[in-house]
Amino acid sequence: MNNDIPDIVIGRLPLYLRELIRMAYVDELATTSSQELGRRLDISSAQIRKDLSHFGEFGKQGTGYHIPYLIDQLSQILHLTKTWGVAVMGAGYLGHALASYRGFNSRGFHVSCVFDADPQKVGERIGDLSVQHVDELEGTIARLGVQMAILAVPIDVAQELTDRLVGAGVKALLSYVPIHLAVPEDVQISYSDPVVQMQRMTFYLEP
Amino acid sequence: MNNDIPDIVIGRLPLYLRELIRMAYVDELATTSSQELGRRLDISSAQIRKDLSHFGEFGKQGTGYHIPYLIDQLSQILHLTKTWGVAVMGAGYLGHALASYRGFNSRGFHVSCVFDADPQKVGERIGDLSVQHVDELEGTIARLGVQMAILAVPIDVAQELTDRLVGAGVKALLSYVPIHLAVPEDVQISYSDPVVQMQRMTFYLEP
Repeated sequence: MNNDIPDIVIGRLPLYLRELIRMAYVDELATTSSQELGRRLDISSAQIRKDLSHFGEFGKQGTGYHIPYLIDQLSQILHLTKTWGVAVMGAGYLGHALASYRGFNSRGFHVSCVFDADPQKVGERIGDLSVQHVDELEGTIARLGVQMAILAVPIDVAQELTDRLVGAGVKALLSYVPIHLAVPEDVQISYSDPVVQMQRMTFYLEP
Repeated sequence: MNNDIPDIVIGRLPLYLRELIRMAYVDELATTSSQELGRRLDISSAQIRKDLSHFGEFGKQGTGYHIPYLIDQLSQILHLTKTWGVAVMGAGYLGHALASYRGFNSRGFHVSCVFDADPQKVGERIGDLSVQHVDELEGTIARLGVQMAILAVPIDVAQELTDRLVGAGVKALLSYVPIHLAVPEDVQISYSDPVVQMQRMTFYLEP
């Protein structure tokens, strides 16, 4: 199935899920429609219906979507019925922000370990975790069965750490490091670079 | 011109620019080809040539691209020949990471001001800046002529702050807040939510 569905469709499902959870828990709604969901997300209702139709029939003509059911279905599709352990690489300000971010736990993720190469940072407490030396990376990741990692490290160590994480069994990486990283084909990688996002916007601004 | 070129093309230009700068300053190369650039970015050379062809003729058959020239041209296209002042909203760990991030300055941006609502944080030094109370937002943004802002604030104040920033003249926002925000049509907005990025990847993993 995975190869039949465009990745851009998969990329919108977490946005639908996030908004549906908000509808259920903040706005205390039980049902919604592709129109309402689309209005809230600035996505056309036709796009939403088309995206969801890849996975089945979730709504009823006239009554729309039952929100808890759609949340459950999207969670299953995205493999969020388990909690994924995540290794945070780097315990600077960004690593701290990530390791202490409370938004992970309710959405399928749990920071299992934090690493840094700086002996001054090793042993520091971040919430329930203690920063470990990067030398312990392979052992800890194998022991905890961690399959995901977030990179918040300097550029010059990013590729080497990526290689070590992949060697230790990590299958998906989210990198905040502003370079392109090489990973094997069966490893997922996603990037977050504020400058790349801002440069895309300045194109549209009056200089 | 802006409306003729697909936004997805614009979104790749900062990646080309970032890699070209790396080629010039780290690898000390003077020329490159769409093949080499594509190999480094996992993008096809045909895609790169097609993207660049929207803006003119930058390479020569056989000799490829002169890197400093292409860097200059992309910088002009993306309006990076000036430095854009940026307001950072929120002085938690993420706000700190952003306000002290050294990757902005060489790439067209400069953090001009940092705001927080917490009186404990107001006055705190982050590099050359002092955290200001959010009440000073409108005055400071007008005085400094800031047109861009980064949101690193709690969910419940994000829309209100967005409205205030737009009212004060901000034309582009990068939001780290995990909700969809409403902005006028002439205002650019871009989002960064680690959970959305990670949920897109777990779809492809064995649960």
